[in-house]
Amino acid sequence: MKGPMKAFVYVTLKKTVLDAQGKTVTQALRGMGHAAIADVRQGKYFELTLAEGTDAAAARAEVEQIAAEVLSNPVIEDYRIELGE
Amino acid sequence: MKGPMKAFVYVTLKKTVLDAQGKTVTQALRGMGHAAIADVRQGKYFELTLAEGTDAAAARAEVEQIAAEVLSNPVIEDYRIELGE
Repeated sequence: MKGPMKAFVYVTLKKTVLDAQGKTVTQALRGMGHAAIADVRQGKYFELTLAEGTDAAAARAEVEQIAAEVLSNPVIEDYRIELGE
Repeated sequence: MKGPMKAFVYVTLKKTVLDAQGKTVTQALRGMGHAAIADVRQGKYFELTLAEGTDAAAARAEVEQIAAEVLSNPVIEDYRIELGE
């Protein structure tokens, strides 16, 4: 049985933008002795469940628009989309 | 040239835990006319850059420990790890 179509959206700060939250995690891990971790960047992750019967091409276009206009701030953030189940 | 090894950690609320943030995004999208989106769940995403010369097996074990003990709350959250570049 096929489950509903899902879209995964990953939103991260652009490389040129300082990630204060990630830096804090990096420092914390270093303080705990995790020397193998050179850097941490933190982002957001969204799992979108699409309504049944949505066509894959239409879904990609709609999720693309949602990622660009609602889930991310294009001035400081990048996003990446994956479609799956 | 090979870049530094990276680990990607995805932290999501367990299926049984109410995701208030995700519900809010779902409602907002519905209000904007995005009828194809049945549900949204929001999570956290971490990109860890490993120190040069870290062995892949050691990296996985260390990231596994960090994900379980630092990046997620095992009572209410699940995590998933990917190693890459």
